[in-house]
Amino acid sequence: MIAIASRKEVAELAGVSEATVSRVLNNVGPLKEETKQKVLAAAKELGYVPSSLARSFARKRSGNLGVVMPYLPKARLFSAYYFSEILSGIGSKAREEGYDLLMLFRDPDGTLDYSGMFGMRKIDGCIILGAKDEPEELHALRHIRDEGQPFCVINQHFEGEGFFEVDADHEVGSWQAVKHLIQQGHRKIAFLNGPPEYSNSRDRHNGYVRALKEEGLEWDSTLQFKGNFSRRSGIQAAAGMVAVLDRIDAIFAANDRMAIGLQQGFREQGIPDQRIPAIVGYDDSDAAELTNPALSSVRVPFYQLGEIAASRVLQMMEDGTSSELLREPKQIKLPTELVVRASSSP
Amino acid sequence: MIAIASRKEVAELAGVSEATVSRVLNNVGPLKEETKQKVLAAAKELGYVPSSLARSFARKRSGNLGVVMPYLPKARLFSAYYFSEILSGIGSKAREEGYDLLMLFRDPDGTLDYSGMFGMRKIDGCIILGAKDEPEELHALRHIRDEGQPFCVINQHFEGEGFFEVDADHEVGSWQAVKHLIQQGHRKIAFLNGPPEYSNSRDRHNGYVRALKEEGLEWDSTLQFKGNFSRRSGIQAAAGMVAVLDRIDAIFAANDRMAIGLQQGFREQGIPDQRIPAIVGYDDSDAAELTNPALSSVRVPFYQLGEIAASRVLQMMEDGTSSELLREPKQIKLPTELVVRASSSP
Repeated sequence: MIAIASRKEVAELAGVSEATVSRVLNNVGPLKEETKQKVLAAAKELGYVPSSLARSFARKRSGNLGVVMPYLPKARLFSAYYFSEILSGIGSKAREEGYDLLMLFRDPDGTLDYSGMFGMRKIDGCIILGAKDEPEELHALRHIRDEGQPFCVINQHFEGEGFFEVDADHEVGSWQAVKHLIQQGHRKIAFLNGPPEYSNSRDRHNGYVRALKEEGLEWDSTLQFKGNFSRRSGIQAAAGMVAVLDRIDAIFAANDRMAIGLQQGFREQGIPDQRIPAIVGYDDSDAAELTNPALSSVRVPFYQLGEIAASRVLQMMEDGTSSELLREPKQIKLPTELVVRASSSP
Repeated sequence: MIAIASRKEVAELAGVSEATVSRVLNNVGPLKEETKQKVLAAAKELGYVPSSLARSFARKRSGNLGVVMPYLPKARLFSAYYFSEILSGIGSKAREEGYDLLMLFRDPDGTLDYSGMFGMRKIDGCIILGAKDEPEELHALRHIRDEGQPFCVINQHFEGEGFFEVDADHEVGSWQAVKHLIQQGHRKIAFLNGPPEYSNSRDRHNGYVRALKEEGLEWDSTLQFKGNFSRRSGIQAAAGMVAVLDRIDAIFAANDRMAIGLQQGFREQGIPDQRIPAIVGYDDSDAAELTNPALSSVRVPFYQLGEIAASRVLQMMEDGTSSELLREPKQIKLPTELVVRASSSP
């Protein structure tokens, strides 16, 4: 019998999504018996037969979308706003398309064998979070790129590699934060940045320097501080700033957790509220609204980053190497937005 | 050659964990080449050979621990403190044992085919979150119980089914919260509970009623309110309470999100701060410390719930039906702790 009906027509007759039709006909993943029967009946009625090649190809699939998580010892990974929002975005897209998420944890002693994950059919596609600019990571990513596997890196840029990457524009985001502090009349603006292995730390540094320059301010090495994105590292940074507090008008922190740590740290050091510098955080997490004073912050569309990365990888998985995506720009940068609250305005 | 060396000896010689030895010898999941070689060399040196039966059995494994998530349309699942803490606990144990987490999302139109997940070797064991006391769910759980699959239910009790369950003692937790409000001199204590399909809503109700009774107070149906655990439902409940606010001294809310929604809702309704009733939330989430006034709450050891559930399921996966766990109590209830902050104390 010749397949004259389209997948779309089968979906309409059965009253299900096209993705569900594919999953039933390709026998991918668990499905309700009732749904199966509806789809099979509709396919039969319309004389729809997918090609056996497509079917056997599809049978090799796991039905899993991999998400690579960073190794952070003892950290409560899912509790960080950053990861939980991105994962929620990825999860919602995966669920829509009938895929399950496989969370892959990096070893403390190295990166994952991404290629092996595909080879052993644990995953059909992959989204990589918390990648660092390090040789082992780059090697593993080049390997799957050269194999033509569908994958996307979130929030990390590898120059000249042609990976699919989805990120927010952290240079502009940081520029927005520092520009705002300068407009509030501050001149001596300290910067608490994250670790330099992340490209987004470099982006933030560039935005900070650019805003200073535009206003004719000098970059001052004694106003640079480093944390690891934890609240604790913000508390520690505050302790280090106390001795030079007369030389600091305002602070830009690379995420909200560190910014909240700064607020807390200054109080622990006995600094009166009116002497605590103006502070702008980054991420605009749930906590920013709840802290006292409420924290100004740079809103990053994490949920959308996850959604877009998942959409692209799922699309590549569906299309294979013929994907039109391959002709699109490979780097997507979403805009950020400054949210001003009491911590940086009178 | 007879296997005279134990897995433990191989692990010690190779300088890796016993779990890693198993994974190398059973060829489960991706492993670093260097680790593989170390383990194989140690096994050879000690003359260790696992039984071929064990090996072929092990080869059928996926290396995945399944985590079933509830269907909550458009909710940012991972962003809820409750889920993210439990997942972090599960993830840390899975990572220790070299397993990956497979996140399984329920369909909007029904429960998952748990049995099929095992049958198709997507998972080797399973932890179920957000289960409801409904016939379909119960049917699916009985099925995998009867098949002898390793699984555990978190935060839901099914009476008389003999499932492995890990939960916190929500009856005592709620009793602690209400007892505290009464000790503060409050008599008219409203209760904003979650949906009744969850056994932990019933537990909270029982704790609330028990505390009232002990103090000779009557249960008052007009002081009972229902939300769905979202902040929005707390805001809505506040709007409903405004008309009867002269009859409410204090409120116990079944989670922090709803409690924070109440605080917000009363302010939106123009209620002056000193007329907002005393409030105790539940979960002791990150946000409780940050809100204004800081929220009294009942601390639930979510991270430990996840760790314990994962430990048990991983142990059952390792031992098979010979597991000593089968002789242990199947229900574990961890204790809760009341944390008093400004929202309920003068």
